[in-house]
Amino acid sequence: MAYLRNSWYVGAWADEIAPEALFHRTLLEEPVLFFRNTQGELKAISDRCSHRFAPLHMGTHCGDSVACAYHGLRYDASGKCVHNPHQDGAIPAAAKVKAYPLVERHRIAWVWMGDPALADPSRIPDFSFADDLVPTQMSKGYTLARSNYQLLSDNIMDLSHVDFLHPTTLGANELSKVKATFADKGDDVQICWWSPNSKAFPGFAAYLPDADALADQWTEVMWHAPGYMRLENGATTAGRPRDEGVNTTNLHLMTPESETSTHYFFLNSRDFDVANGPLNDMAAQMLAGVFTNEDKPMVEAQQRYMGTTDLMAAKPVLLPIDAGAMRCRRVLQRLIEKENAVAAAAAKTEATVASTIPIRAVP
Amino acid sequence: MAYLRNSWYVGAWADEIAPEALFHRTLLEEPVLFFRNTQGELKAISDRCSHRFAPLHMGTHCGDSVACAYHGLRYDASGKCVHNPHQDGAIPAAAKVKAYPLVERHRIAWVWMGDPALADPSRIPDFSFADDLVPTQMSKGYTLARSNYQLLSDNIMDLSHVDFLHPTTLGANELSKVKATFADKGDDVQICWWSPNSKAFPGFAAYLPDADALADQWTEVMWHAPGYMRLENGATTAGRPRDEGVNTTNLHLMTPESETSTHYFFLNSRDFDVANGPLNDMAAQMLAGVFTNEDKPMVEAQQRYMGTTDLMAAKPVLLPIDAGAMRCRRVLQRLIEKENAVAAAAAKTEATVASTIPIRAVP
Amino acid sequence: MAYLRNSWYVGAWADEIAPEALFHRTLLEEPVLFFRNTQGELKAISDRCSHRFAPLHMGTHCGDSVACAYHGLRYDASGKCVHNPHQDGAIPAAAKVKAYPLVERHRIAWVWMGDPALADPSRIPDFSFADDLVPTQMSKGYTLARSNYQLLSDNIMDLSHVDFLHPTTLGANELSKVKATFADKGDDVQICWWSPNSKAFPGFAAYLPDADALADQWTEVMWHAPGYMRLENGATTAGRPRDEGVNTTNLHLMTPESETSTHYFFLNSRDFDVANGPLNDMAAQMLAGVFTNEDKPMVEAQQRYMGTTDLMAAKPVLLPIDAGAMRCRRVLQRLIEKENAVAAAAAKTEATVASTIPIRAVP
Repeated sequence: MAYLRNSWYVGAWADEIAPEALFHRTLLEEPVLFFRNTQGELKAISDRCSHRFAPLHMGTHCGDSVACAYHGLRYDASGKCVHNPHQDGAIPAAAKVKAYPLVERHRIAWVWMGDPALADPSRIPDFSFADDLVPTQMSKGYTLARSNYQLLSDNIMDLSHVDFLHPTTLGANELSKVKATFADKGDDVQICWWSPNSKAFPGFAAYLPDADALADQWTEVMWHAPGYMRLENGATTAGRPRDEGVNTTNLHLMTPESETSTHYFFLNSRDFDVANGPLNDMAAQMLAGVFTNEDKPMVEAQQRYMGTTDLMAAKPVLLPIDAGAMRCRRVLQRLIEKENAVAAAAAKTEATVASTIPIRAVP
Repeated sequence: MAYLRNSWYVGAWADEIAPEALFHRTLLEEPVLFFRNTQGELKAISDRCSHRFAPLHMGTHCGDSVACAYHGLRYDASGKCVHNPHQDGAIPAAAKVKAYPLVERHRIAWVWMGDPALADPSRIPDFSFADDLVPTQMSKGYTLARSNYQLLSDNIMDLSHVDFLHPTTLGANELSKVKATFADKGDDVQICWWSPNSKAFPGFAAYLPDADALADQWTEVMWHAPGYMRLENGATTAGRPRDEGVNTTNLHLMTPESETSTHYFFLNSRDFDVANGPLNDMAAQMLAGVFTNEDKPMVEAQQRYMGTTDLMAAKPVLLPIDAGAMRCRRVLQRLIEKENAVAAAAAKTEATVASTIPIRAVP
Repeated sequence: MAYLRNSWYVGAWADEIAPEALFHRTLLEEPVLFFRNTQGELKAISDRCSHRFAPLHMGTHCGDSVACAYHGLRYDASGKCVHNPHQDGAIPAAAKVKAYPLVERHRIAWVWMGDPALADPSRIPDFSFADDLVPTQMSKGYTLARSNYQLLSDNIMDLSHVDFLHPTTLGANELSKVKATFADKGDDVQICWWSPNSKAFPGFAAYLPDADALADQWTEVMWHAPGYMRLENGATTAGRPRDEGVNTTNLHLMTPESETSTHYFFLNSRDFDVANGPLNDMAAQMLAGVFTNEDKPMVEAQQRYMGTTDLMAAKPVLLPIDAGAMRCRRVLQRLIEKENAVAAAAAKTEATVASTIPIRAVP
């Protein structure tokens, strides 16, 4: 299997889903329907009617249920068919669709794609910094990229590419000269680039006590399986504590649509000059442009030229700068293999049970 | 095999094929060329030259034959090459293409896609009602739909969808409240929705003796393998004979282009106010719009979401409203299996015969 | 294998590749990067970085090397990574890409797609006539055709199609009436159409001593594996030596991009009225139009209708006019089989060697 299934995935930014809307997106090759119930709570069920496989998002939002556009069957948030408008209205027991555990937290609709019994909200990454951001200190967005989601994670876990792919936009930090260090925490991978006594990035310098003084600067990415990254980037006067300086906190969140396409959610925020709307707009535009015009074409071209979704099968020449990306890939590989082993063992148990059931004639 | 081969298929409306034209359409994955001979008779042969596989429709209409655009070979309506313009003009015995039995009847070019020896024109469905319709009482059209042809038949055989998919256009009959009955005839399936003492559909009411009186109304579809449906829809004053009322007769004719695309031919006609051109135009526009904007997007979405061309393999939850569609699917399945069994038996006989032929060394 | 690998292929017209440019084209399904070094010499290496498979043509031309846009690795013309800008700059031994032997000759960038040890420039076809052509006596061009390259060779090796596909542009020679003769030379196939005492083609007649006199006319194509054709077409007064007449020399050069798409390079030149620019422009426009509007749509349609890249597997009905194309196909088939047999023998030797190595536990 290509995906980790027992995991929370970013299905959408919560504000993508309006109160009366039927919002749909394909996650891990499954069509998912998002809607809010009459309490405003976000829900997710399969977007495919059990009767004739019509997309439910073509239908109608009916308060706590959704009506299929084709024959009017209604499903509630548990996925059960609760209304059959035909004749005597009897509802077959099989008339239900998959329901996905969903938690709205940190501005995100988190969807659990695996066994619902294992959906534990405490496993959602802590992005609570995003809860109280004011509009003038943050921006966020979404785009669909035509590449495997791991290539996009690799891109963030190896920021030494910044000097080459983004020389005129983000390139001043000269990350390629800095050896990264690691501070992993369990299955999470943290990569840190530390540049002491360096010339401050212009965007930071203006907010330090002396814009011309040398600065200590950091870029840190914390990766969380299957593909969530929180990136801290900031500067302080050389030798001073980090909290005397300035910092930006950014999210890069990847959810596979398929093996060759990825839902990319990004959020950028800063902890200085937080009421400066024009600065915020400028930064938002610049960062969206960097991804759209520089990262995305490269990662999509890489996918086309790889000719596979399995980077390692294509035998890349690895460099020390790949260490972060490789750590993440190994963790993910291990988690998927573990999940598959559990599934295989369960299938074996079922087969044993099944073989003890007497054979019956099927009418 | 996915198709019933020994069957008449609608290749085209007869008036789609102009006297001097080379008209082509792919039927059951085979490219077919239609043309009229010097007597104006419609003919159908393979659209693929036996020499270099050039499409013959790129060539020239030469009276009773067709010249390939690439090297000038000419084929007559029997599929035989009748002219080789090169050098001594000798024609190899193998230079021939498949010829398809064709009957022009009821405004339709009927093409036999199977064994020509079995092509019996008496098996063409009787749509003679269409022969004498005047232009102001009928409309017809053609569209290509990106779905399996059986999904399109299902759509007509279960008209309870009308209340949900067409609520503002056709929905007033409240078919979903009515239990359908069946009146099958041999391999043909007839489904009937009978609504006695109901409020007359506005389009009918104006033509009944008392527009406000209760009416008896009917919707009947007769399905004929592999995918032809004649639909009668009308109303009469409650308790009065049907022939005192008004009726529309409509055709929905499906020919597979491939397993995931269908040539959809439709004809609508009415037996009242037959000289009313503006009414006819309005109805034609409305009915074409209903299919284009409501049915077609739904059936194509259903095909995409099914992820297969075999509905039953996707294990739909069946409702009583599916009974008509399921009857048709079972008949078609049986006819295809019978045809395949005959073909397999013939192949076995050939193999037995072949095994009695002494083995020869092949050079 | 579908391609002859140990062969020179036309990668580009030399003047397609500007001094500072990174030019790329996919040949035999391999992405190839072309660039000129500081001496102006043309070089070809794989267009795919060994590190992360980024297309090198997205990067930067750096004199004698090329820098990848993603992480800045630089490769020289031998395919070796010569610069790693990260940290200590160490370069892994495996950091290299395939280098393709390349010879710039006769206005063409010839690329060797097989074993570099076998790349012998003396095997490049002699198109030296093209070296000294003046601009007003020649035109050339390039197009991508969506068909197998052998169908395009067949098209040139059977010019009897001219009377049918190009009746209003090139058709006056009535090649279909003439029986072709052959004058093969080793693996090269030469087909000749000789039309003595014929009415001169208007474009030639004006340049013969008596425009109204009968002429001897020739059309000759020399085919060279895998798909290069030199076509001579001219006329002289009946009974006079050919060098008293007029002649055109033309190249039709096919390089597979894939099994279903072909890079088509063409050159047309004439040996009369060589300073006549307007005549040259008119001829160039006419010839490009003939291919674009007449040949290309036909060959692409043929590919679609064949449903395979293997013409012979589709069992075409062969005519005497196919003799030239069939000779070329047989030669190419033999060369490919020979190459595959050598490769299989080498693989077997390797396997034998490998089987003598003691089996070790793999960690």
